[in-house]
Amino acid sequence: MKAKSFASPAVHKPLVYYEFERREPNADDVEIDIHYCGVCHSDIHTANGDWGEVAYPCVPGHEIVGIVTRVGTSVKKFKSGDKVGVGCMVNSCGTCEACKNGFENSCFNETVWTYGSKDPIDGSDTKGGYSTMIVVPQHFVLDVPDSLDMAAAAPLLCAGITTFSPLRHWKVGPKTKVGIIGLGGLGHMGVKYAKAMGAEVWVITSTPEKAQIATTYGATGVIVSSALTDMQSATHRFDFLLDTIPKAHDLAPYLKLLNVHGTICLVGPIEPMPGFHSGDVITGQKSIAGSGIGGIQETQEMLEYSAKNNILPEIEIINIRDINTAWTSLTNKQMSKRYVIDMKKSFE
Amino acid sequence: MKAKSFASPAVHKPLVYYEFERREPNADDVEIDIHYCGVCHSDIHTANGDWGEVAYPCVPGHEIVGIVTRVGTSVKKFKSGDKVGVGCMVNSCGTCEACKNGFENSCFNETVWTYGSKDPIDGSDTKGGYSTMIVVPQHFVLDVPDSLDMAAAAPLLCAGITTFSPLRHWKVGPKTKVGIIGLGGLGHMGVKYAKAMGAEVWVITSTPEKAQIATTYGATGVIVSSALTDMQSATHRFDFLLDTIPKAHDLAPYLKLLNVHGTICLVGPIEPMPGFHSGDVITGQKSIAGSGIGGIQETQEMLEYSAKNNILPEIEIINIRDINTAWTSLTNKQMSKRYVIDMKKSFE
Repeated sequence: MKAKSFASPAVHKPLVYYEFERREPNADDVEIDIHYCGVCHSDIHTANGDWGEVAYPCVPGHEIVGIVTRVGTSVKKFKSGDKVGVGCMVNSCGTCEACKNGFENSCFNETVWTYGSKDPIDGSDTKGGYSTMIVVPQHFVLDVPDSLDMAAAAPLLCAGITTFSPLRHWKVGPKTKVGIIGLGGLGHMGVKYAKAMGAEVWVITSTPEKAQIATTYGATGVIVSSALTDMQSATHRFDFLLDTIPKAHDLAPYLKLLNVHGTICLVGPIEPMPGFHSGDVITGQKSIAGSGIGGIQETQEMLEYSAKNNILPEIEIINIRDINTAWTSLTNKQMSKRYVIDMKKSFE
Repeated sequence: MKAKSFASPAVHKPLVYYEFERREPNADDVEIDIHYCGVCHSDIHTANGDWGEVAYPCVPGHEIVGIVTRVGTSVKKFKSGDKVGVGCMVNSCGTCEACKNGFENSCFNETVWTYGSKDPIDGSDTKGGYSTMIVVPQHFVLDVPDSLDMAAAAPLLCAGITTFSPLRHWKVGPKTKVGIIGLGGLGHMGVKYAKAMGAEVWVITSTPEKAQIATTYGATGVIVSSALTDMQSATHRFDFLLDTIPKAHDLAPYLKLLNVHGTICLVGPIEPMPGFHSGDVITGQKSIAGSGIGGIQETQEMLEYSAKNNILPEIEIINIRDINTAWTSLTNKQMSKRYVIDMKKSFE
């Protein structure tokens, strides 16, 4: 079926209207009419070629919420009319130990990303959610709880799971002091989840102006990373730091903020990091960890947790014709919410 | 009381005979007649000034086992004649959260090391165990279980606790696959503890000749780090890697050996480490951690665990007059056991 979309035609080019054919659903596939798609900074990195070669035209978008229109003959999980989501991946080997344990996002063979990957089913280049429809194997389709607003649910599929998964894995709870480094799309979800899990949450930001907004999300206070007195006063304060800074940076100032046995978890920077002094982790038995999205089962759990605790991103709904402006705004760090594209209105 | 010792007179100078006065035990002090002192690579680094300025003459040694000769009036824990040990530290602030929780080795104010620190009690430069006697506050004196051989117990106070603590903290047990990187003084203790805790243990070494000795310590097998096929066949194999390489090195080849949620813990290199790609920890939710010795309580637990499970280092007993030769052998990596100085024979 024809999918209307916006796509990047080449490296560092603005997105343009693009129409292409999605495959007919096979026995295991779910066909989804896309209603909303969140705009993630990864979309920009990938489409611009920052993370390596990608096939053009590149249709970004991996925070997808829509309604099932057709299902293949062996699909039991979903039926036409269901409200569903698709996140960052649409396939994986399914047979390695990581996949079998529910960590398809860390497949030992190859995770097939929602866009910019080679689709093992039909050999095409995968194309994402800046599009009117998509066809995805049932295992990689999430059930979106009834009570979740469709537009607000979209960013949960990447920003939500990327912050929820490490907070849960490192057992953040009522006795934990958590620092969220950076207050953008990921950071603001991190504050909300950590608060809901019972932790005392602080925001660490280079932008003092974000203090007030941070407290409305549930933060106890704000530490301005460029203010030496702020940073000194927070020495050894945190059990867990979630680092959402979207580029490589020195970890030393943040390692000083960790208590004994503390962990700083990188979810923002996906690139070569500068060196560190091993003494900064040896003293205090500390860890530098990483985390990226989550497996399908925990993504489903995240959606249910978000519905139950009413944890939703701050969003601004846009028409896809404004996507290039939105990308510029994101690139210039002018946005502390999440843009979500209203696909129905965009192509009505 | 006069202590006979060997000391480094200046940067990169051979150790020479040196006599000095230890303080009279105050109310809280334990005076110890030193029988054995292990030779740790840290002794060489510190005395040579590799880790920064140190006061000379520098008397190294922080793997001390001896017999109590006198105790201060308020000492309840020990009495004259007790078999005791002293490890890497002889004091800490005692009031910070780290100290209060038993992590004196990570004191937020200042851990006072057994040698090369400023002693807060009398203002002297602390002097270590290459010496006939020492005076130490009771909290920093360990009880050495009766069944432990005095000479073999000495290296437990540094090499033992440095490997035992992280293996316990990261919950190594019957379901864990552990890789010990490097098979020297630390590495060989790591193999023995991990095996005793029930793990499947592999040794990762640059020296194929160490294969046979590794299996006698309990290793299932050996991976030669320079052999690409060995390393490739071990991809994703390990839950926990204990990195005892005593110098900075690239972590990327080792991160590939970790399973989902795996941790590599640095205990060997204490210096600036090269950068790493965050994608290597983000994929698989992995961690790069560090660990150095352990708190007093867990050091006591380690001694009791070692006695109960009969876990002892491989040692070679030497006279202190041979210390400079021993240091040369250590520096040239010719030693896969631990040298222990017999202090009684050295000064009889």
